[in-house]
Amino acid sequence: MALLYKADPVRGEHWRRLFAEHAPDIEWRAWPDIGDPRDIQYLAAWQAPDELETLLPNLQVLFALSAGVDQLDLGRLPTTLPVVRLLDPGISQGMCEYASFAVLSLHRDMLRYRQQQAERCWQAHRLVPAHQRRVGVMGLGLQARQILATLKTFGFALSGWARSEHRLDGVACFAGDEQLPAFLGQCDIVLCVLPLTEQTRGILDRQLFQQLPKGAALVNMGRGGHLVEADLLEALADGQLSAAVLDVLEQEPAAPEHPFWHHPQILLTPHIAAMTQPESAFGVLLENIRRHQRGESMLGLVDRERSY
Amino acid sequence: MALLYKADPVRGEHWRRLFAEHAPDIEWRAWPDIGDPRDIQYLAAWQAPDELETLLPNLQVLFALSAGVDQLDLGRLPTTLPVVRLLDPGISQGMCEYASFAVLSLHRDMLRYRQQQAERCWQAHRLVPAHQRRVGVMGLGLQARQILATLKTFGFALSGWARSEHRLDGVACFAGDEQLPAFLGQCDIVLCVLPLTEQTRGILDRQLFQQLPKGAALVNMGRGGHLVEADLLEALADGQLSAAVLDVLEQEPAAPEHPFWHHPQILLTPHIAAMTQPESAFGVLLENIRRHQRGESMLGLVDRERSY
Repeated sequence: MALLYKADPVRGEHWRRLFAEHAPDIEWRAWPDIGDPRDIQYLAAWQAPDELETLLPNLQVLFALSAGVDQLDLGRLPTTLPVVRLLDPGISQGMCEYASFAVLSLHRDMLRYRQQQAERCWQAHRLVPAHQRRVGVMGLGLQARQILATLKTFGFALSGWARSEHRLDGVACFAGDEQLPAFLGQCDIVLCVLPLTEQTRGILDRQLFQQLPKGAALVNMGRGGHLVEADLLEALADGQLSAAVLDVLEQEPAAPEHPFWHHPQILLTPHIAAMTQPESAFGVLLENIRRHQRGESMLGLVDRERSY
Repeated sequence: MALLYKADPVRGEHWRRLFAEHAPDIEWRAWPDIGDPRDIQYLAAWQAPDELETLLPNLQVLFALSAGVDQLDLGRLPTTLPVVRLLDPGISQGMCEYASFAVLSLHRDMLRYRQQQAERCWQAHRLVPAHQRRVGVMGLGLQARQILATLKTFGFALSGWARSEHRLDGVACFAGDEQLPAFLGQCDIVLCVLPLTEQTRGILDRQLFQQLPKGAALVNMGRGGHLVEADLLEALADGQLSAAVLDVLEQEPAAPEHPFWHHPQILLTPHIAAMTQPESAFGVLLENIRRHQRGESMLGLVDRERSY
């Protein structure tokens, strides 16, 4: 009985030591040194190899090493293979830190001050009290709810939108396509942490931007595929949006000629909002392996219908 | 009985309307239109005019329109004149927002990512979990305590230092000159919100930086006079410090040739961490006027011995 790891080798070494110390009964193998493929029951991976059924005939569970699973191409995986997302508290913490940084940056005009520093300009701008700043989160899953709880500390006027109905204390919740315009119409800052699915691909487009109040700002920490990049450039150029903080792009890493690099109204970071932390993720992964061994349900099991 | 306002005229108009609506018994006058100086009992000012005794013979209280009073030159004011700081909840909120922005920026390497964006470089760096990031606050007054409470949301390892002993839940407290080295030795990020006094002028100097762990980062949201600017440049150049976020300078606005403008390891903002908000400050000021009229003690009365 072995677990095959297929992701960054440096972190893999970290994982290996944790398994050796805390779960010596689970044999650790790191891609591409598979050994006898018939031994592999568990695959822990960022992206799955092709022809998984043939390659690993006794595979029982695919553990994604990420909170989202859009990079896995679920349609190409065996339909009966359980796929489990990694609900790492370290990822949630990173997301909350990044979301707070991004929202505070936009709330406090920090992209403008960044530009002023470059231009040697010392000028203060009006400060909007937090309770007058309306911050809306697209997505109301576990991470979105933790982000909202963190943003609440600052006293922002909070709202959230998701496909299905939610109730959250201190957050105005909107649901489904029909309530999307009402949600957008009251967002000074809109933050996307949606899963990337067929329904949400390209959702951050011209039509959506036009439903925001004039001069609103965007944070995308979902996936690059959520954003229609040309539409963002247009919305920034015509003043419909004032600024954007982006951690993800359709093509990563961004090409040197990508127009976002030198855009004064875009703060761009290289997909660093959250990283799986072996220290905190290990406990979650091992717990799911033990649950599987005991025949219990695993935490973060992907619904193949919903794709998340 | 009149109140004389001497500060920014645009905000003054805001204050005037609030007084007219909520305290019509207090006559509002705005500098330089003093009218009969003998009517003036209260002065609400950012900086006091010269020869106050002569100018306003019946002045009873000087209300500073700021949380700090170092700009007032207390030594030149009549010794018996009560001076009251403005404990505006709007200022505290602004300070908490800025402190969180600054600490998250340093914690998450955002100055480095800012530079990478300018250089079109897509590269992620190691993410340190918040509980391993030691954030120390210099100052343990009202604002410092609110900042610490906000930073606690993110799970940082928190400490604080002040002249006198304090006890704060979840914050390692250090006191006095003799515990300053122990405090500094465990600060990855040190944030200054001290009042500016004879004792604290120039406290952020080479000697202090050398007691921090190598590669530590600095936030100054106290006063420009706390920082020896040449020593900061030296500490950044030799790697003793990795980065600084500064909202205040010795000379404001900064001259165009100031070396901080184009320094990649310095994020500089034009003294915008907090601004007095007439909406929230008015209630505090009026409450103090009413207390004075009733012969009660005022909130934020400055201790002329301590200078804050």
